[in-house]
Amino acid sequence: MMATLYGIGVGPGDPDLLTLKAARLLASVPVVAYPANPQGESLALSIAGGHVGPDAIHLPMVMAFTVDRQSAHAAYDQGAREITAHLHAGRDVAVLCEGDPLLFGSFAYVLDRMPDGTAVEVIPGVSSLTACAAVARRPLALGDQPLLCLPGTLPREALDAALAGVAAVAVFKVGRHLPKVVAALTQAGLDAHAVCVIRAGQPEQRLLTLAEAQDQGLPYFAMILARRPATTG
Amino acid sequence: MMATLYGIGVGPGDPDLLTLKAARLLASVPVVAYPANPQGESLALSIAGGHVGPDAIHLPMVMAFTVDRQSAHAAYDQGAREITAHLHAGRDVAVLCEGDPLLFGSFAYVLDRMPDGTAVEVIPGVSSLTACAAVARRPLALGDQPLLCLPGTLPREALDAALAGVAAVAVFKVGRHLPKVVAALTQAGLDAHAVCVIRAGQPEQRLLTLAEAQDQGLPYFAMILARRPATTG
Repeated sequence: MMATLYGIGVGPGDPDLLTLKAARLLASVPVVAYPANPQGESLALSIAGGHVGPDAIHLPMVMAFTVDRQSAHAAYDQGAREITAHLHAGRDVAVLCEGDPLLFGSFAYVLDRMPDGTAVEVIPGVSSLTACAAVARRPLALGDQPLLCLPGTLPREALDAALAGVAAVAVFKVGRHLPKVVAALTQAGLDAHAVCVIRAGQPEQRLLTLAEAQDQGLPYFAMILARRPATTG
Repeated sequence: MMATLYGIGVGPGDPDLLTLKAARLLASVPVVAYPANPQGESLALSIAGGHVGPDAIHLPMVMAFTVDRQSAHAAYDQGAREITAHLHAGRDVAVLCEGDPLLFGSFAYVLDRMPDGTAVEVIPGVSSLTACAAVARRPLALGDQPLLCLPGTLPREALDAALAGVAAVAVFKVGRHLPKVVAALTQAGLDAHAVCVIRAGQPEQRLLTLAEAQDQGLPYFAMILARRPATTG
């Protein structure tokens, strides 16, 4: 009888933004897996580590956080093999996911590598989307406006196509893509009321105007929120 | 010195999906406000009520959950007046919000009515968006696909315009709008792999195919998730 794979959203950065359910599960799960850099540092573990039991087996999935997709794929392959071995041995495994596991998160890559029939439970978490809106203290969309969640990593033409006619947008993973993202927002007429949130839920969180962001540059964990005025009440 | 207005996301339904921060705040805040129906029932209070302190003052904002926008506006006007009075008297007020306060939530209507200079803090919560994805156990978008969050309440032409060329979509508030939403998804070629999640995070939560949903009809708290196959790895 195989054990259960838990995908656990640990929220955007503040350990207090873990859910009660995540905290309870982490206290008792025998194995925790998480992405880590070559120095062994893991943002997900730094957020949730205080809730992990002292006897838990740690399974870092070590990858270089660069454009090197090969390194990440190899790390997920290796991680998935080790996770599967623990599950077959009857040990539940919790994969720690920054934000939410299924909204632009790396859990998809783990899930994709699990054998058919694996028992999976996903514990949703506070996503960077709503954490950034909380820092900006403004609704993501007004009234019945659709909201587009847009990875800033897309090429310029894809950004332009996605933004055409959009009422409200949250651009994820802006970082070094800032100049391209700002140009696309400007072309779409969405730059006027845009704000930029850096590291929401972490001690260094900041709210910037687009001009301030352009002066300073942005880290990877930065989001731009923009929307048009509402047309209906 | 005015007190602080807290907008608190209480998650989609399971009280265990409250954040540690929300649970802690609710235990000590002197006033809690929440939307309620004319019978005095409140989903937000039913989710978070177990964490509210025994001496808290309750401020239900009573409104008919119908198409009657006048009733809701009047309830928010009245609620905002009472909230402001408590804040001026030095009492912090927590507004309980189903899901997250700023993602298609009613907190925007409260925020909009607060006097300039009101101290506001938003505690983000698990949104129905990620809670539904957790029930469906599948990523909301694949790779770098943009994700559109679309209110099913929009007119058909607006749905069609918003869905054109979209890679992944989450349709909110489907309920009685199901036939219109399904027609729009079909026209956009997004119906093939769509699933429907009812009351995510609540005891009655269910995962349905689109065909099953069409047979049964849907409650207000239902979401459809759909996406195209990924084009890049």
